[in-house]
Amino acid sequence: MTGGRRSVEEHAQHVAALLEPLGSIPPAQVPLARALDRTLAEPVHAPISLPPFRNSQMDGYAVDAASVAAVPATLAVQAVIAAGDAASTLTAGTALKIMTGAPIPDGADAVVPVEDTETDEAAGTVTVHHTTTSGMYVREAGSDVHAGALLLPAGTLLAARHISVLAAVGLTDVPVRGRPRVAVISTGSELVTPGEELGPGKIYNSNGPALAASAAANGAEVTSIAHCEDDPEEFAAMIAHAVAVADVVFTSGGVSKGDFEVVKDTLEPRGGTFVSVAMQPGGPQGTAVVDGVPILTFPGNPVSALVSFEVFARPLLREIAGLPAIASGTRPLTIGLESIPGRRQFLRARLDGDGVAPLPGHGSHLVAGLATADALLDIDPDITTLESGDLVKVLPL
Amino acid sequence: MTGGRRSVEEHAQHVAALLEPLGSIPPAQVPLARALDRTLAEPVHAPISLPPFRNSQMDGYAVDAASVAAVPATLAVQAVIAAGDAASTLTAGTALKIMTGAPIPDGADAVVPVEDTETDEAAGTVTVHHTTTSGMYVREAGSDVHAGALLLPAGTLLAARHISVLAAVGLTDVPVRGRPRVAVISTGSELVTPGEELGPGKIYNSNGPALAASAAANGAEVTSIAHCEDDPEEFAAMIAHAVAVADVVFTSGGVSKGDFEVVKDTLEPRGGTFVSVAMQPGGPQGTAVVDGVPILTFPGNPVSALVSFEVFARPLLREIAGLPAIASGTRPLTIGLESIPGRRQFLRARLDGDGVAPLPGHGSHLVAGLATADALLDIDPDITTLESGDLVKVLPL
Repeated sequence: MTGGRRSVEEHAQHVAALLEPLGSIPPAQVPLARALDRTLAEPVHAPISLPPFRNSQMDGYAVDAASVAAVPATLAVQAVIAAGDAASTLTAGTALKIMTGAPIPDGADAVVPVEDTETDEAAGTVTVHHTTTSGMYVREAGSDVHAGALLLPAGTLLAARHISVLAAVGLTDVPVRGRPRVAVISTGSELVTPGEELGPGKIYNSNGPALAASAAANGAEVTSIAHCEDDPEEFAAMIAHAVAVADVVFTSGGVSKGDFEVVKDTLEPRGGTFVSVAMQPGGPQGTAVVDGVPILTFPGNPVSALVSFEVFARPLLREIAGLPAIASGTRPLTIGLESIPGRRQFLRARLDGDGVAPLPGHGSHLVAGLATADALLDIDPDITTLESGDLVKVLPL
Repeated sequence: MTGGRRSVEEHAQHVAALLEPLGSIPPAQVPLARALDRTLAEPVHAPISLPPFRNSQMDGYAVDAASVAAVPATLAVQAVIAAGDAASTLTAGTALKIMTGAPIPDGADAVVPVEDTETDEAAGTVTVHHTTTSGMYVREAGSDVHAGALLLPAGTLLAARHISVLAAVGLTDVPVRGRPRVAVISTGSELVTPGEELGPGKIYNSNGPALAASAAANGAEVTSIAHCEDDPEEFAAMIAHAVAVADVVFTSGGVSKGDFEVVKDTLEPRGGTFVSVAMQPGGPQGTAVVDGVPILTFPGNPVSALVSFEVFARPLLREIAGLPAIASGTRPLTIGLESIPGRRQFLRARLDGDGVAPLPGHGSHLVAGLATADALLDIDPDITTLESGDLVKVLPL
């Protein structure tokens, strides 16, 4: 199908349906040391209780609270229990010196902090000046979490504090959401790889690095980055490779109305759909499925390619990888603007205090201009004029 | 020096002075493919103009605008210029078919979009129905950026759109802020590595993995993670290794008032400073410098260690790596709270709509509780009671 017209919403739904099978990418089991910023694929239950045993919250003396009911009370000190020692037993009427984290001895039910005591080392005694109560400065087993309880729900984006508790219960690795594998193919005989000589009529290939970085920044694992001349045979071979190593393929270029539209010309006979989406930049869009792998074909202008990614691919990639959605919102314009009727405009803008300012220059080749933007304004097709102070939809970059 | 008391501000200043030399870590030159999320160490100027040459914004016909001053105008079509072709010359009074991105031929000054024309392939002519003006649909060389102009300022946190423009000007690699190298040593004879058998009186080592993840999440490169028994010789050997491979060392445990404080006992004779900071959790803090490398010694309770990192290390690591500061702010409490006078409290909390709710449980061993928090409340030492609706300082985790 070619030449159809679609709204942004229609095309987004079409793309979402195409990428729907990626939601079932199998989870990966990763070591804790590589789990930072990954998303739990399954709930994790505590295999042990925390604390695993009753232990001291303070450096001090483990006692039976009853033995210091009348103060001052002087008790013989039997020994020292260090953190890491096995549990011991308190002889009634005596004290055991105990370190933070050491197991409370059987027969003790409270810890008197060292600050509240007086030690006579020669006599081997400690004098306690204040009464205490059963349980004071004692951390009960399971008081943080009980064995079997839910530790972290599925969908938790793992930060250091989550790594901490996963290690604390003794886990070495966790099931996380799989990363979708992405292949990127930028097409165009005018493209030269950065570092090579720029001949007349040539430009450097920026879409390949930019789409790869965009995919990586949104939870994907980039498995292939290739550049293709406007040569149908070369492109067909690259597609065959890409679908073998990726779960989704992004291409740039070759989808418009020129004489050498290698992407459209190759994929349309294989069932691809090429349409005009009522948006700017990014109007010419296409999709295909080759060997079961979805392919999104973006236009070749660098700004169009990146805006296409932001609008159609980013929300889906993040959902598949289990990353939180980018929150769009509304802000007041600090400068008025005009918009073309009939097309949803995605205008480059900069956040400015609580407001947002559109940036000058709309050309879809203005990559340097795009780099100064930190948001896109999302202007509905029926809006033609907005004034300073009007609220606009803002999509953070 | 031991036993001194400090405010949080005083200790933070002391730590900042200690880490100040890390600000001069040399920049790293990294390939664009690994530049995502790094921070530019130097401004980047454009080595070429963008676009590098005058080119067509549309698929259409390159003409001299004067030759279509009277319409309809039928012009002979000489040839097709594809993107990537070298510049050609337009014969006066004719047209050249031109593709988007192809160089505007000498003698042409406008492009008529293919949609506004009618082609007679047999006759080899194109009929133009509307007049055009000089410069229409022509992208001038340097209209995006001129060679030599500032492309991206130092300090730019590189996202896909920056990678795009860096590739577009042909750069293969960029100078980025160096990552501080961090070594982590967790101490305590009670600690067992996750995956090993948990004997009586033992707990799993969570501080090592958590501090390493915290450092990595804030721009550091973790070069060593070690666990040490409460054995001064072993600890001294580990410190010697750590300062050889890292720019800054974090330790946990061994800094309090117990009988086996391996960190304090080892580093104090070597000029270390061990103090009580008026905060909770995280009161016992220490610092040392060994072979010119700063060492921050955090307390061993997992919550204390992580809060210490957040308060003292995170802002400095981010600044060294050139990452944006974590914005703290104020929010209204959704539940009232009581705080201990004389200590700055860092209470675990959850963001709740526009407000924030303190979480129950203050014990510094409550790692499972910490994992449910997404912020710390920062309560000044002179505050003892806050009511629902009162504004509190919030430090996002």
